[in-house]
Order: sequence, then C-alpha cells, then structure tokens
Amino acid sequence: MKIDILTLFPEMFDIFNHSIIGRAIKNNIIEINTFDIRNCTLDKHRKVDDYPYGGGAGMIMAAQPIVDSIKTVKTNNNGKVIFLGPRGKTFDQDLAKQLSRESELIFLCGHYEGIDERVYEYIDMEISLGDFVLTGGEMACIPIVDSICRLINGVLSNSNSCIDESFYSGLLEYPQYTRPENFRGQKVPEVLISGHHDNIRKWKKAQSLNITKIKRPDLFKKYVLTEEDKKLIKDVKL
Amino acid sequence: MKIDILTLFPEMFDIFNHSIIGRAIKNNIIEINTFDIRNCTLDKHRKVDDYPYGGGAGMIMAAQPIVDSIKTVKTNNNGKVIFLGPRGKTFDQDLAKQLSRESELIFLCGHYEGIDERVYEYIDMEISLGDFVLTGGEMACIPIVDSICRLINGVLSNSNSCIDESFYSGLLEYPQYTRPENFRGQKVPEVLISGHHDNIRKWKKAQSLNITKIKRPDLFKKYVLTEEDKKLIKDVKL
Repeated sequence: MKIDILTLFPEMFDIFNHSIIGRAIKNNIIEINTFDIRNCTLDKHRKVDDYPYGGGAGMIMAAQPIVDSIKTVKTNNNGKVIFLGPRGKTFDQDLAKQLSRESELIFLCGHYEGIDERVYEYIDMEISLGDFVLTGGEMACIPIVDSICRLINGVLSNSNSCIDESFYSGLLEYPQYTRPENFRGQKVPEVLISGHHDNIRKWKKAQSLNITKIKRPDLFKKYVLTEEDKKLIKDVKL
Repeated sequence: MKIDILTLFPEMFDIFNHSIIGRAIKNNIIEINTFDIRNCTLDKHRKVDDYPYGGGAGMIMAAQPIVDSIKTVKTNNNGKVIFLGPRGKTFDQDLAKQLSRESELIFLCGHYEGIDERVYEYIDMEISLGDFVLTGGEMACIPIVDSICRLINGVLSNSNSCIDESFYSGLLEYPQYTRPENFRGQKVPEVLISGHHDNIRKWKKAQSLNITKIKRPDLFKKYVLTEEDKKLIKDVKL
C-alpha cells in the first residue's frame, strides 16, 4: 500500500515514524509519503490561499496548487483521492477495511476556512472523522491512516491481536485484568483465575454482550444474538 | 486550560508544536504536557504491561503505573481524567464545547490490548473517537485535544473564524471559491461576484441547507428551519 498525504504541514506526520506504523514503514510493508502542497504553487510568494468570493471570514485554499499536487503524486490510475472534510461519509471500521484493500490512497488535508469547491472534480471520496471541527485535515488524517494501516497484512506483529478487539465482532470488549490479583483492594474476578476455560469464555462473552447493551445500545441492536448469547445474557450478571 | 497527556509515546505529541495549537502554547493561552506512564512503574525493567488473566492475545497495561501517573500530574481537585477508549461516549462538537470550559484535563492513552479494568475507578469519563480501531489512544487524543483547544478564547487568531464553520450552526458549510474566476473551465457562481450582499447571503444559506439535506439528512432533521429557510430551500436550486 502506498499512501500520499497532501498537506501544508508535512512535519505533522513525523508521528508515523513511531510505534507500530513506524515499524511497518521501516519493514517496507507500507509506504507513507507527505507532499507539501506549496511545492505546486505558481505564485512567486508561494501563496496557496486567497480571499473567498462573496466575502466571509478566513482564507480559502486555491484549486490550482491542490489539483497539481494530486497529479504530481498519483502514480497509479486506480489511486483513490480522499478529501478529509465535513461533508464526507463518517469514518468507521467498515470503511477502514474497504480502504485497506486499495493499492494507493491520496489524502488531501484542507486547512484554513476550506478548499475551493472546484477541487471536488478531482476527488474520489470525502471522509469525515466525526461531527466536530478541527484546525485542519491533518488531525483527521492521522487516526484514519493509522486505522487503515493496522488492517494491512504484516503491520501488526501478531495477526490475531486485531480479531478480539472492539468493533471487529460488533461488540465492545470484555474487561481485561493483569497482575496483581489484588490492586489496592480491587480484585480480579474469580472466574478468570479458575483455570476453567469454558467458564472463562462464557464470562468474557457475557461481559461483552452486557457492556455493549448498556454502553452502546445502537451497536447491540445490530448484533445478531446466537442461542448461547441469549442464555448468557440472562445467566451471567455484570 | 492545562492539559496533561498520559502516554507510553510522549514523542508522538510533538505535533502540537506546529500550527495553531503550537502558537497558542507559545503564547501561554494553553498548556499541554505529556507524561510518560513508564516514569511511574515500580518494575526494575520499566515494564508497564503484563499477560491478561484468563488468557487471550496481547498484553494489558497494568493498573499501578497508570493510577500513579494520574496522581502525579493532577494539580487540581476539579481536574477531569478522561480515558480514550471504545466504550466511551462518541466525541462531538457539544462534548468539545463542554470540555473547553474545564480548567484541567488529563487524557489517558491506552495501548496494546487494553488497560486493566480496575483503572476505571480513577477515571471520570471515557471518550471514543468513533467506531473504528486504532493502534493506540494517542491517535484519538490528537484530534480531540485539537478540537477542544481551538474553542478556547484566544487560540484562533480571528475569533469569528469558528462561527461560520460546519457543525457550529448545525448545518454543513456552503461551497467556497477563491481566485481565479475560471479554473480550467470551472467558473465561480455568478451570484458570488455580483456584489449583491443580500443575494449572496441567501445563496450561501440555501446551499448550506441543501447540502446538509443531501449529505447529512440526520443533521438536517435536527435543524430547526426558519420561515426564510423554508422559502430558500424551495427557491434556490443546487
């Protein structure tokens, strides 16, 4: 997977040199390049923004440097150009999975008051991180790229470790405990130290079901209960 | 506002040295400190994680270093401890506004397979960035802190510039254009260069209404239409 990030602040993406994503880049499993949109400006002062037509506060990113940046980095006809903006589809795990199967993703990070509307002609998809305002698209790009990359084969060292997690199964995760058995008066549930594997499995599933039911009734409604699930919800209390 | 970020990867937050948030820190409008949870481990190998009770893939962050980190950084009895995790309330602009009024926020970034459940006793609120999986809480912390900080007085240079934006009014923004008038065959809508202020205002509002209706029917349903809005939706076509 090749990822290009078009931004006015390439230095913000130094974050991908760390942790799991950084290791995957070093191991050539993924390639993440940043591209400074300013490289494509035709203005002698390297300006990339200008006042909005019709008035209003703030500056608008002009179309030309953005469109020429897209053309410069795109190496693949199938490369998907994604704009991080508020009109987009809200990012979720299904979208992360879908995008993790692409060969080239080009993320466009807007800044200031917005981008010139005519850039939309050159964009394949708009994605929103959620219903809140950010100082720039960079702040949305970081978690989105992280979430996509961790689904690519070889990025996580233990490929099992993404199967158990929340949103993968459609349920929230069960509570986890590690040593000591007694932490300042709070004890580990007895079943987890019983060594009885089937009881442990049932306890974990019951916890997942009940926590999801309480914390995220919207997810719980979408989840299809098995016969065992129905029994577990009744029998095992939180 | 004082923000403390508890993390195993403090270097990831160098991103806040840049752009708008970086300037607000330099101007002493906000204070953002990172604290390495490893500083509080009692283990001689500086270990902060261990195997889960009851088995399962991955490692769990132990309670002791986290709880002692919270105690170390908290300077204010009203300081709010926020864990970035999947069971939390989904972050949105209302929550950003609410948190921007606090005097001290302490963000706990989990990593690996999760944190020991007993840490919840020391947490005031859990927040989720959305329904997707990240490599760590750091990736959620960055946009959330950005979104909160930009609402604090003095962080944005032009205090007007956050009023027009999407999600502020409950509608998506109208299309923006800047020079040139003709970009590779695509022209700026005539009304915007007409100089007729009231027509421009109406056009912008009609566009916002129609774009929200099409792209985000859920937001549109919640928005209370004025009499003028109802007329605009009918009269002005996208």
